Amino acid sequence: MTEIVAPEGWTCPAPLRHHDRVVLGHGGGGRLSADLIEHLLLPAYGSAAAADLPDAAVVHAATDRLAFSTDAYVVRPLYFPGGSIADLAVNGTINDLAMRGARPSALSVSLILEEGLPLATLARVADDLGRAARAAGVDVVTGDTKVVGKGQADEVFIITTGVGEIPDGVDIGPLRATPGDLVVVSGPIGAHGVAVLSEREGLTFGTDLVSDTAPLHEMVAAMLAVAGDDLHVLRDPTRGGLAASLCEIAATARVGVEIDERAVPVPDQVAAACSMLGLDPMHVANEGRLVAMVAPARAQAVVDAMRSLADGADACVIGQVTDDPRARVVVRTPLGVARIVDRPMGEQLPRIC
Amino acid sequence: MTEIVAPEGWTCPAPLRHHDRVVLGHGGGGRLSADLIEHLLLPAYGSAAAADLPDAAVVHAATDRLAFSTDAYVVRPLYFPGGSIADLAVNGTINDLAMRGARPSALSVSLILEEGLPLATLARVADDLGRAARAAGVDVVTGDTKVVGKGQADEVFIITTGVGEIPDGVDIGPLRATPGDLVVVSGPIGAHGVAVLSEREGLTFGTDLVSDTAPLHEMVAAMLAVAGDDLHVLRDPTRGGLAASLCEIAATARVGVEIDERAVPVPDQVAAACSMLGLDPMHVANEGRLVAMVAPARAQAVVDAMRSLADGADACVIGQVTDDPRARVVVRTPLGVARIVDRPMGEQLPRIC
Repeated sequence: MTEIVAPEGWTCPAPLRHHDRVVLGHGGGGRLSADLIEHLLLPAYGSAAAADLPDAAVVHAATDRLAFSTDAYVVRPLYFPGGSIADLAVNGTINDLAMRGARPSALSVSLILEEGLPLATLARVADDLGRAARAAGVDVVTGDTKVVGKGQADEVFIITTGVGEIPDGVDIGPLRATPGDLVVVSGPIGAHGVAVLSEREGLTFGTDLVSDTAPLHEMVAAMLAVAGDDLHVLRDPTRGGLAASLCEIAATARVGVEIDERAVPVPDQVAAACSMLGLDPMHVANEGRLVAMVAPARAQAVVDAMRSLADGADACVIGQVTDDPRARVVVRTPLGVARIVDRPMGEQLPRIC
Repeated sequence: MTEIVAPEGWTCPAPLRHHDRVVLGHGGGGRLSADLIEHLLLPAYGSAAAADLPDAAVVHAATDRLAFSTDAYVVRPLYFPGGSIADLAVNGTINDLAMRGARPSALSVSLILEEGLPLATLARVADDLGRAARAAGVDVVTGDTKVVGKGQADEVFIITTGVGEIPDGVDIGPLRATPGDLVVVSGPIGAHGVAVLSEREGLTFGTDLVSDTAPLHEMVAAMLAVAGDDLHVLRDPTRGGLAASLCEIAATARVGVEIDERAVPVPDQVAAACSMLGLDPMHVANEGRLVAMVAPARAQAVVDAMRSLADGADACVIGQVTDDPRARVVVRTPLGVARIVDRPMGEQLPRIC
C-alpha cells in the first residue's frame, strides 16, 4: 500500500508538536481539540470555511426546498489511483444533492479518527478535502472530530452531509420515470471500483485505470438548462453499480428498463478486470457518473450538453424506460438475447466508498 | 457490561433471517442493504420517516436562515444509566441546532457498523433512535449505512446531522456575550459523564445517577418567548464540560466570566465521584444541559420559563459576564478565593459521547 505522506511543505504546526500522532485528547473537546481544529483542519479546509467551524453553522436558504443528504466514507485504502477518501467524501455527498437537481450550499464534515493515526496522514486527508470542496465551489461550514482507541476504527472515517437549494420548478426523482424516457449515462462505468480494487489487491489490469470520482452538480445544471422539467430521473450509480440504480428506479416507479448492452460504455481495463475476477461491470461502483431518464424529445440536447463538459465527454443513450408492471431491468445482448439484471445480493467489493 | 437485548417483541424479520449478525453485504448497496433498510431501520425510525430513506431528502425551509450541525457518536458502552448512544445521537444534534435558537426540522443518520454486530443490537439501537426522534418531534429523513470488517470499528458509530429553521430576528451566538449578562445553567452538571463512567468501569457512587441526555429545543423556545433578543448566548456543555463552554465563549467574545462556585448545582454523587477520581465537575460532560447568557433585566424571566419545564426545574443563575480583555473565566469559592478555570487539555473521559 502506498505510504501516505504529508502535503508538500507541511510541517506539524507548533501547537500540535507534542504529538505527531492522533491521541484520544484530540477528540476531548479541550485545548488539544481546539489546536487540531485551529491549526490543522481549518487551514486545510481553506479560508472560505467558517472562521471557527462552530457546533452549528448558519446556512442561507434562497429556495424553500432543500436537498439534504449524508454519507459515511470508509474506503480502504485511503488513497487509490485517481482519488482519495477525501475526494469521495466531498464529491459523493455533492452528487447525492445534485441527483435531486439541487445546487449544493454547504457541507459538514465529521471525522472519526483512530488513536495513533499520524498527524501527517490527517493533514493530507484534510488538505485534499479542502481542495475537493474548493474545486466544487462548496464550503465546509461545520464539523466534528471524535477519536477512538487504537483498533476501534481503521485510520479515518469521514462522514459528510450536504444541504443544497432545489431551484423552483425542479422535480427530479425515481417516481418520474416514464415509459418512453431514454436512459443516458454520463460516461464509461466501473472505473472507480476497479481502481480501488487494483490498489488494494496490488493487481494491475494493463494500462493505468483511475477512479472516476468527480462532482456532478455542474453537469446537472447544464442538463436542467436544456431539458427543464423533461429531465425526470437522476441517479449516481455508486455501490451496487448501474444495475442497482436501474433496479431501484424501476422498482420505485413500477416501470421496466431495457438496456442495449453494446451501448453501455465499459473501458477495456474494466472489462478485463471484471472478466478475470468474475464481476459484472454493471455491478461495479462509480463515483463520478450519473444515469438519467429523459423525455425522448430532449434526450439529444441533454447528451449534447453533457458532452460539452469534460466529465461528460462520452455521454450516450444506453436504453429506454418500458411499460412493465413487473419492473424488470433487461439487457439486450448483441445476439438479441435478453437477460434480466438484478441487484447484487451483497458486497462484491467491501469498503469501496 | 450490560447485555444488549432486542426491543421487546422483536424477532428478526424474515428477509434478514439468513443472518443474525451484520455482514459486509448489509453495507453493499444491494439486496441485503435494501432489506436492512426496509425491514429493520425504517420500521424502527417510525412511520413519520421518509418512505424510503432516499439518498437525498427534500426538506422544506420556512425561514431563510438554517442552522446546520453534525456530530459523530462513539460512546462506549452503547447503553448506560439513563440513556444510550441513540439518545445522544438524536438529542445531541438537536441541541446543537437549538443552541443557535433554531427549531429542528430534520435529521440524517449515518451508521458505521462492525461486521458481526448482532442484528438484535442494531434493532435495539435503531428502535431507541426512532423513539428519541419521535419524542423530540423531529423526523429522520435520510441516511446511510456502511459496514466495515470485524475489528475495524467498535460495534456501531452513529453520525447525525440536523437542519433547523432559525426564526426571524433570532441571533444567538458567542460574540453576543456582553459584560453584565447573567450566566444561567438549566440544571445540575456532570451527571452524564459520571453515569457513563460508572457503567464502563463498574463503579457505583452511592445512589443511582443517570445521564441527563435530553433534547433542549423546547426549553430554548420557552426562553426566547420571554427574552427575545435579550437572550444572547446558548451553549450545551458536552465534552470538556461547563468549563470548556465558558472558556470558549469568553475567548470568542473577549469578555470575562465570573462564576459563584456555591451557585453551581453539582449532584452529591457527581461530587463524590469526581472527588474519588480527581476530576473537576466543571470539566465533566453533560448531554441535556445548557448554559445561557442573558441581559440582566430578563434573567429572572428566563429562569422562571426554564423552571416551568421538567428539564429546567433546577435552572439558576451561576455568575456574570465581566469586562476582561484577557477573557478569563474565574470561579469564586465560598472563602472568597478566585481560581482561574481553564479548558481541560485533553480527554478526561474518552468516548463519552
